[in-house]
Amino acid sequence: MTDAGEERVAGGGLLHRRALLVAGALSTGGLVTAVRAASQAQSPASMRDPGAPLSGYGARVHTSEAIQRIVPDLPFPGTGSSRTPLQLLEGTITPNDLHFERHHNGIPEIDPAMHELLVHGLVRQPLLFRYEDLLRYPRESRILFLECSGNSGTLAAAQPVQASAGQLNGLISAAEWTGVRLSTLLDEAGIAPSARWVQAEGADAAGMTRSIPLSLCLEDAMIALFQNGEPLRPAQGFPMRLLLPGIEGNASIKWLRRLKLIAAPAFSREETSKYSDLRPDGKAELFSLRMGVKSIILSPSFGLDLQGAGYREISGLAWSGRGRVRKVEVSADGGASWAEAALGDPVLPKALTRFRMPWRWEGGPAVLMSRATDETGAVQPLRAAWRAHYGAGQGYHSNAVQSWAIDSQGKVAHVYV
Amino acid sequence: MTDAGEERVAGGGLLHRRALLVAGALSTGGLVTAVRAASQAQSPASMRDPGAPLSGYGARVHTSEAIQRIVPDLPFPGTGSSRTPLQLLEGTITPNDLHFERHHNGIPEIDPAMHELLVHGLVRQPLLFRYEDLLRYPRESRILFLECSGNSGTLAAAQPVQASAGQLNGLISAAEWTGVRLSTLLDEAGIAPSARWVQAEGADAAGMTRSIPLSLCLEDAMIALFQNGEPLRPAQGFPMRLLLPGIEGNASIKWLRRLKLIAAPAFSREETSKYSDLRPDGKAELFSLRMGVKSIILSPSFGLDLQGAGYREISGLAWSGRGRVRKVEVSADGGASWAEAALGDPVLPKALTRFRMPWRWEGGPAVLMSRATDETGAVQPLRAAWRAHYGAGQGYHSNAVQSWAIDSQGKVAHVYV
Repeated sequence: MTDAGEERVAGGGLLHRRALLVAGALSTGGLVTAVRAASQAQSPASMRDPGAPLSGYGARVHTSEAIQRIVPDLPFPGTGSSRTPLQLLEGTITPNDLHFERHHNGIPEIDPAMHELLVHGLVRQPLLFRYEDLLRYPRESRILFLECSGNSGTLAAAQPVQASAGQLNGLISAAEWTGVRLSTLLDEAGIAPSARWVQAEGADAAGMTRSIPLSLCLEDAMIALFQNGEPLRPAQGFPMRLLLPGIEGNASIKWLRRLKLIAAPAFSREETSKYSDLRPDGKAELFSLRMGVKSIILSPSFGLDLQGAGYREISGLAWSGRGRVRKVEVSADGGASWAEAALGDPVLPKALTRFRMPWRWEGGPAVLMSRATDETGAVQPLRAAWRAHYGAGQGYHSNAVQSWAIDSQGKVAHVYV
Repeated sequence: MTDAGEERVAGGGLLHRRALLVAGALSTGGLVTAVRAASQAQSPASMRDPGAPLSGYGARVHTSEAIQRIVPDLPFPGTGSSRTPLQLLEGTITPNDLHFERHHNGIPEIDPAMHELLVHGLVRQPLLFRYEDLLRYPRESRILFLECSGNSGTLAAAQPVQASAGQLNGLISAAEWTGVRLSTLLDEAGIAPSARWVQAEGADAAGMTRSIPLSLCLEDAMIALFQNGEPLRPAQGFPMRLLLPGIEGNASIKWLRRLKLIAAPAFSREETSKYSDLRPDGKAELFSLRMGVKSIILSPSFGLDLQGAGYREISGLAWSGRGRVRKVEVSADGGASWAEAALGDPVLPKALTRFRMPWRWEGGPAVLMSRATDETGAVQPLRAAWRAHYGAGQGYHSNAVQSWAIDSQGKVAHVYV
């Protein structure tokens, strides 16, 4: 087949999005095999004997068992993080088994019948909510991303770390969360006029605590009880967690036991010694809670080298803590030219958006980059601009454009452009 | 607390949807506990010792292990169906482990390196697609429901079957599917002008085969390769399955090995001896493939009896094979009065939509019903109208309104109204 008539939209072989959308517009250039004589003359073994039985709870295909979260060696096995292997997954929903985790002192086992959520401080009437109380409240369901503020932190390293897209960026996942609007509970307790912040505390052995502006708690915060349909898992905060859409993950306190309304932030350990952003002038930005606009290319990416020239799809994920992704631009020539990718439908606010760009790799060197813009007009910064904003060693809120170089053998490397 | 000022929208205690949306509009009527003296003076055990370690692949909370698909006793353990326990889940996405299954001769184990998809018949050039070929094609991701045409078939029984919502209706699930548009592959093979139907065949030991109108295959059909992010599971057709949005599940052939373009339907076993709809005049409707507009109340439902009067949420799922759900009406008085439920955002075409209705149960007898309308204006029929359309014994395409009676003790029963 020929690729004559393909519409090029930028350098390095990027094709018009129409190639994804219109039958006939795509010339794959011989990916498939014209039928051989006597093809499929014999039925496969799978058709000759009855297959395996039905079951109450499903299992993955054997070859998928290699799809695991990335867990580093840790001095304390419950303190640290596991990362979602983004480059091995598709779409925008993360299976619960593969959602990233970040724990500060392990995963507690909590009996829901013994668990209570206390709402107190600057309220008209302190209230205690049991799990079974919350199950009777009105619920909402939303598909949302959750991202650790330390995600992609190694982009601050002097040399680009050679690691998979999930190893570099896998502290993000997405799920359909169901729970009770936090505003409903706060309203029931009665917010005192002097309340401006909410201190949230978890029932884990870290006593994980964060101060959150009251405005965020009233905007769209949720007490999550279910994730992708099933009750929360222990690692995601069972029986209940705070969920702050678009906000750095550590503030969405798991195993939530206490919400104290206060007039000023508490300046707890997790908002002073950690989770603050050092500037070049030596001062730190505090409570920089909202996650920036960001995108990453997952296919191709490090470890998924190209097998031969020809047609393929560049695809990845984009998101913004401010709302919807408006566009994602892709470059195949290291930023010299850009073209707009197709966005998966629907584009949801504070959720992951899959972008796709048809591409004909000619077999020569290429540098792939993606750059997202959100509905507020915020644009994902280049690495130099991102670094210039912060002091040395800053690894939080790393949302710079990332680059994959492809050599003429199809090998993919992480590079700084 | 008082419920004075609550806005009633229909009989039996149905409240205005505003109660879900506006802080302050909801009076829960004392679901929670005002704080006792010395509450939370002692931190819980979970805060005293480090918790469990991180892991590569997650696990459910112990109490969730009771959430299993419903599998009947079967003479052949791989021939039959397992049902999603809908009443125990939330939101609209079904975890892959709990997606319903319907197999006609067990679950085959297929080596993807040996699997081929043949496209032949009335085409310009027969083609063979290997799994690795398809992985290079442009992909799309869509959240879609899949429903067995036999779902809710027991509604034809003379007496209402007393069973859970999942047992009665659990042959439906939803997932984010990712794959290749079927139109892309057919276009590459070249559709002959005489082609009108496509015969799809699976590589299972049933050789499951269906004839599908070519128009459906060109509209929005997909060769699915991923489900909720991960590669298809064996039980869902690994390495590839046909996926026909909005169409009865058995036509979405799993373990797809062959697509033959033909001029007229093949009248195979699965479209003559089964999956046809008997009318009162003794004739059968064939190829009634599209699933109708439907809704079911999951909470409360059989087995989930009410514990005491007061505020709670009525919630359930609605869907239509024709597109989006436009509205869901709920009745608490056996159909004497109806009020419109709140629909979860976004309402996606051919996907599940969660509906919610605030309700104050006064403690007396009630009969709960839900009735969906889709964007084409089609309305879910009452059971009498649905039965009148078909002959005796018809259990396919059962989309009639269902009813749960609640007695003064809060016990829920399945009833015909």
